[in-house]
This record gives sequence, C-alpha cells and structure tokens, in this order.
Amino acid sequence: MTCHYHEEKYMVNKKIMLVALAFFLTSKLASMEENMMKNDISKIKEMAFGENDAMNKLAELCLSIGHRLSGSKGLEEAVAWGRKSFEDEGIESFLQEVMVPHWERNEESLFLVQPYLKKMSFLSFGGSVATLNNEGKVEPIVADVVVVNNVEELSPEVAGKIVLFNIPMPENSLEGYGAVSKFRYSGAIEAAKHGAVGALLRSITINSLNTPHTGGMGYSNEYKKIPYGAVTIEDAMAMAKMQEMNIPIRVQMKLSAKTYPDALSHNVIGEIKGSKYPDEVVIVSGHLDAWDVGHGAFDDGAGVVHAMETLSIIKRLGLKPKRTIRAILWTNEENGARGGTEYSKEYGANTFAAIESDLGAEKPNGWVAEGNNAQKEMLESILAGTGLDLIGEGSGVDIGPMREHGVLLIGLRNIGVRYFDYHHAPSDTLDKIDENEFKEGLAHIAALTWSLANVETPGS
Amino acid sequence: MTCHYHEEKYMVNKKIMLVALAFFLTSKLASMEENMMKNDISKIKEMAFGENDAMNKLAELCLSIGHRLSGSKGLEEAVAWGRKSFEDEGIESFLQEVMVPHWERNEESLFLVQPYLKKMSFLSFGGSVATLNNEGKVEPIVADVVVVNNVEELSPEVAGKIVLFNIPMPENSLEGYGAVSKFRYSGAIEAAKHGAVGALLRSITINSLNTPHTGGMGYSNEYKKIPYGAVTIEDAMAMAKMQEMNIPIRVQMKLSAKTYPDALSHNVIGEIKGSKYPDEVVIVSGHLDAWDVGHGAFDDGAGVVHAMETLSIIKRLGLKPKRTIRAILWTNEENGARGGTEYSKEYGANTFAAIESDLGAEKPNGWVAEGNNAQKEMLESILAGTGLDLIGEGSGVDIGPMREHGVLLIGLRNIGVRYFDYHHAPSDTLDKIDENEFKEGLAHIAALTWSLANVETPGS
Repeated sequence: MTCHYHEEKYMVNKKIMLVALAFFLTSKLASMEENMMKNDISKIKEMAFGENDAMNKLAELCLSIGHRLSGSKGLEEAVAWGRKSFEDEGIESFLQEVMVPHWERNEESLFLVQPYLKKMSFLSFGGSVATLNNEGKVEPIVADVVVVNNVEELSPEVAGKIVLFNIPMPENSLEGYGAVSKFRYSGAIEAAKHGAVGALLRSITINSLNTPHTGGMGYSNEYKKIPYGAVTIEDAMAMAKMQEMNIPIRVQMKLSAKTYPDALSHNVIGEIKGSKYPDEVVIVSGHLDAWDVGHGAFDDGAGVVHAMETLSIIKRLGLKPKRTIRAILWTNEENGARGGTEYSKEYGANTFAAIESDLGAEKPNGWVAEGNNAQKEMLESILAGTGLDLIGEGSGVDIGPMREHGVLLIGLRNIGVRYFDYHHAPSDTLDKIDENEFKEGLAHIAALTWSLANVETPGS
Repeated sequence: MTCHYHEEKYMVNKKIMLVALAFFLTSKLASMEENMMKNDISKIKEMAFGENDAMNKLAELCLSIGHRLSGSKGLEEAVAWGRKSFEDEGIESFLQEVMVPHWERNEESLFLVQPYLKKMSFLSFGGSVATLNNEGKVEPIVADVVVVNNVEELSPEVAGKIVLFNIPMPENSLEGYGAVSKFRYSGAIEAAKHGAVGALLRSITINSLNTPHTGGMGYSNEYKKIPYGAVTIEDAMAMAKMQEMNIPIRVQMKLSAKTYPDALSHNVIGEIKGSKYPDEVVIVSGHLDAWDVGHGAFDDGAGVVHAMETLSIIKRLGLKPKRTIRAILWTNEENGARGGTEYSKEYGANTFAAIESDLGAEKPNGWVAEGNNAQKEMLESILAGTGLDLIGEGSGVDIGPMREHGVLLIGLRNIGVRYFDYHHAPSDTLDKIDENEFKEGLAHIAALTWSLANVETPGS
C-alpha cells in the first residue's frame, strides 16, 4: 500500500510534472514569441522613425506627377508609380481594375461685379455642371446674390438668383467639418428647389488666407442641376456684411466643368504572403486619388506613403508575417469611393483587419475602430502600452464597405490642428508636412499592422 | 529805521508775496490745465474704446468702394468718400492735388507646364512690364526656371530663363520684411543683368495658404525691363525641391499689365483750427491708396480710419485744440509716395509734429519716432504713464519727407504678429480686423494727437 501509495503519489507527481512541463514549455514558447514580437516591433519602429524612404516617396508623389483626381492622367501615373515602387523593392503587387467617375474642372471664374469689380478665389465642387446657355455652350451667369445662414432661410425670393450659404465651420474638428460638409452635398439641391440659378458655399475651414476649398457634391433628379462651388471665407463674410449694409451684390459665375463617361482606374495592391495564415489578410491603406488642387500631401499622400512604407519596412527587415499583409493604395476615395467598394466585393471576405490612414500627417492622437467586442478587445490588448489608444468609433471611407464582412476596421486619427487649413485646398502641399510627425504616424501604423498580422486569436 | 526796516521788510515781504502769489496762481493754473488735459484725454480714450464710427467707416471703405490703387477709379472714390465723411461731421476739409503713377495689373497668369500642368497663384509687382512680343502684343513667355537663393547665385546660366528668387522671410517682423523686400525692388534688375527673360520672387511672408503677395518694384535703364511677380511660398518651395530632385521646371508667364501717364489724385485733409497756435499743425494720418487685391483693411484702411476718427472724436467732444490738428488721408503711399512728398513741399514747414498709422490694426506695441533730442524728450514726457512707450527710431513713408523740415515724426507700431500674413495680399480683408485691438490703436493715437496739439513747450 505504501508502495502503491508511493506509486500513486509518484504518478500524481508525474502528472503534475508533465502538466507543469507542458505549461512551462508553452509559456516559455509564448514568452519567447512575445519577446520576438516585441523585438520585431522595436526594429519596425526604429526604422519608421529613422532612415527610410517615406519623405522621398511623398516628394515624388507630390512633385513629379501633378494632380490625381479620378479620371485624370495624373491618377493613372500615380497608379503606375505605386506599382513600380513595390516592384523596385521586390514586393509582389497587382492592380485591381475599378471604373471611376470622371469629372474635369476646366476653366472657371467668379467675379464680384457689384458693388465693384473683383475677381474672387473660387473652386467649383467636383461633379458640378457648367454654366451653359440654351445651346449648351458655356456662358457666364450674371445674377444677384442672396446670402443665407441656413437652409431654412431659403424662400421663393432666391428664384433667378445665386444663393450663398454663409455657414461658418463650428470648430476645427471632424465634427465641425461634418456639420457643414452636408451643405456641400445638398446645397445645390436645396437652392434649386427654390429656383436659384447657382449656389455658393463658404469654404469649410477656420483659417483662410483667401483660400478656397473644393470637395464632392450631390444633385437630385427632381430639381434642376445648378452650378455650385466654394468662395473663400473672406469673400463670404464680405458678401454677408454687404447684404447687412444693404449694398446690392451681383456676381458673374462661369464654369466649364464637364462630366465624362466613367474611366478605368486601379487599386494598387502590394503584399507579403502570410507564413501561417496566408488566407487571412491584414490591410494597411491610404487613397491615391486627390483633388485637382495642391499636391494632395495631407489628403492623402501621407496615408498612401504610410501604407507603402509599412510594407517596405517589413520587407527590408526580412520579417515574415503569419498573416498576409496588403498595402492598398485606393483609387477614387474623393468622389465616388469606388476603389474600396470594388475591393470589398472581390476580396473583402477574407480580410482579418483593415487600417486606413486618411487624416493627414500631423502627430497621431489615437485610433478609431469598428468591429465586434472580441475584435475590439483584441485590438485594445495589442494597443496596450503603445502610447496610442482606441479613442472612439470610426474607420475610413475606403475600408468602410468591408463592414458587411464583419472585418475589424481601424482608422488613424491625428491631432487635426492644421488639417482643415489645407483640406481640399490649393494649400495642401508638400511643405506642410512635418517629417517627425509624419514618421510618428508611420511608426504606429507599421507596428499595429505587424501586430495584427501575427496575433494569435482564440479562433486561429 | 525800524520803520524803514519794517517798510523794507514789508516791501520784501510784499515782493515775496507777489512772487508767491504769481507762483501760486501759475501753478494753480498749470495744475488746472493739467487736470483739464487729463480730463480731455480720458474723454477721448473713453470714446475711442466705446461707441464710435471707426468700424462703420472701415466697413464702408473696404466693402463699398473696391480696390484703390493709384490711378484707379476706386482711389478717387475713396478720396470723395473721405471728404464727404469730414463734411458730414462738420469738419473743415480740403483736397491737395497730387499727380500719381498709374499702373494697371489687368489679366495675368502663371502656369507650371513642366513637370506637369498647374495653374499657380501669382501676382505681378506694381510697375512690372507685360510679357510682350516684338510687335508689342501680349504673348506668354514659356521658359525654364532656375531657382536661386540669393543674387550671388545668378550666372550666365540664367540667360533666356526665368529666375525664381527663393528667399525665405527671416522672421515675421519689420526687419525680416526689409531683408527680403529689397529683392522685390532689385530682383528684375539683377536677373536682367544676367540675361533672364523674367523673374519671380517667393512671397514675403511666413504663413501662407497658397497666398501670393504684391508690392512695388524697380527697373534700371541700364538693363532690359523684364516681367516680375510673386509666387506663393508653397510654389517656390515646390520648385526649389524639384530643382533639387533634378526635375526640369518650365513655366508659362503671361502679364498684360500697363503703365499709363500719371493720374490726378488727392490727399484728403480734414482740420480743426488751433485756438492759440493756429499756424502750428499736428498731423494724424494713414494712406488711402491700397494694392489692387483684398480690401486693404490692414494696409492701410485701419490707419486711415485711425486718423479720421481721431479728428471726429475731438470734434464730437467739442474740444478746441491749441494747435491746428489735421487728419490726412495720403494718396499713393504704395507705389510712389507722391502724396507725402507733395504735402511736405507745400505745407510741411509749419508742421509741429506728424503721426502716421501704417502697420495694421493689431494691438499697439509702442511708438517709433524721428526728431531732435528736445522733441523726443517732449514726446517721452507726453507718453509717460500712457502704457505705450517710445520703442525705437522710425516713422512712416508718408510723413518721412517732412524730416527735412525738422518735424517730429511718429509712427505707431503694433505687435505685428499677423501683419505679414495679410500684407499686400488678397487676404488683407475686413474680417481680419479685431475691433478691440483696432480701437486700442485709435485710443492711443487720438490721445497722443490731442496731447501734441496742446502741449506748451519752451519755444511756445
């Protein structure tokens, strides 16, 4: 019995030892893996902050190609440039064909003709019709201006006139932008509903040095399509004050914009295959198209380079991810979101997580995300201790369509102090990029991409 | 003797008493006068800070007239407006005829044509020639661009090309401005010396949202007159970076500017006659002309209204100055300084002191002055305790010519934090005026004007 007891005790001990050994080995492995992971992230961050090709890539995109609005020669040159950049670094890549809207601004002008003659800085909105006469020829509209502060002030009084929506941006934030950008989408419809022949919007910004903005707009088939564009906040305020002083205001508006049939464009996709879960894809992305003013450095050259350089850094370091990592340079975010929509249809289903950087190149402030509780918990556990927290709900326009596939969607949010000074404006230029802030965004994106590509989940 | 002594003593005492009485009465009078003066200044400052017509006047000048460059309809409308404003308030006024330069910008454009097509924000400098072909017709120049950082980098290499002077403004200060504005005056001469066919200058500012500036420039009879204007700091930096990246740069420059024979203009002079020294004149002034972009709110609508409203406040309060006070709205400060020159010739000699406000409408920072020691001591004694000190040597372009008459010249200096964001640019608009800061300048100017008009000096 003693012996048996002994044996039993021995057996129990053996069992305990085996369990303990297994546990020891597992946790040893886990901790080895954790250490390797930490080590990899250190190397990634070091390269992101240090010597890399981010600034050169951004300078090339901004300065050698020109504007890259959907349907333009510039956008397809940028597509080729993105592809070549992947190829030059030995990164596998492919293009996904996407049909995109094709609108061209062409020549346009806005003059104040009463109380005095003054050429105003003006940008029509993407998609606006031209000022055409009955024969379909471009002919300026000359009309009185009625300044309104909101849609409720519209009345039959605006019939035959041009409406100026003089709506100040509430604050320099994403919320402030949303509160006014809805008027950019609906302004021409609302004005046409009351018989206006044209519409103007005060540029959506807080800071202006006579700087006009552009952006996308909408029409309704129920109402006449009238020309629509932005004046600077200075000119909007001046016209509002003139109206208050009972000074009659008259402008001459000329747009020769044209909408062409949809054009062929491409999402540019670079990838490093996963070693363990090759069919699970982690996406890091920005959009390649940009408005036809400025360099599109903030919107979204910075995001494009964040994605490209993330993949390049991983490649240069010789790191092998468990999951497949795709750097995607989306086409047509600005006026159609076709790139993201098409990708989601064709490839969205096997996406593990998707990151988008589309808020400029300022200092990172946090992450926003969309997903179920388990996905968000996983994300939060990855982010713990990185110095950049999950700060709210949200993602990005291009990755948004993958929502229907239940993908974890993540957006980088920067401090956004200067973002709306440059947004959709000719002032969105390379010189506004602070290299340190830009690289800080890159470091966080690259580290998160790597973590998502390698994290072990209960389902894995 | 006793009696005599008594009498003598009495006489002495009588003398002492008479002297004491005289002294008592004089100091009583002096202190009464001092109190009245303090009281008047309090009332002037109260009205300057409170309800007055300054903002209305500035809005009228900025919004109802249009631009007012020398030779324009706008400038003479502003002259008539200034005169009428004095008349409406029962202030005596007169015009002094001045022949002024007459240059018109007309249509102009600058396109980047290589490495890609981009319309650049551009303003030619006042006085620039047009781009003319051999038949004297306006024809665009298409030429390669050479970017230089200083005059020393010019070489025969620039022959047949367009030179871009990419010289950053050292700091947002008057000194920083002076360091670069000299290139605006001499740039076309220096470039033409080496055979360039056109010249461009990086706009003189620190802050830009794609904002070009203009200003005066010079030619030499020794060298060809070549077209010259400003690009934004963004475009200047982009072209400098392109050159660094070995990307060839080519632009198309088109100017149809024209210089006409000198035009008739006017200094507008409002005055309140002095009660004691009517032939000694104290001048308070700003310049009515402004570049043909923006509203000229900072440069120099604010200074014009400082002068007008100073006189109006004194008039409205029913105050009678000892010296004659003249509010002068100078013509042609920007491209000729003819208004100040003509005034000095005709009326400068009997000027007691002259103040100019020509540094915008920001919070006042101090005074600068030119004069002999006695004049500066007098000024310092007046300024003691006002909270605004004499901070350096200087005055103003329009009052400068009176230097030769030994006049005490005084300039208001504001903090100048935002001044060069708007200076000579389309962003110099009414909305940039902070009413409180603007009125603080008015209060100091009005108080100093009143003090100078009433101070008793050893020579009086």
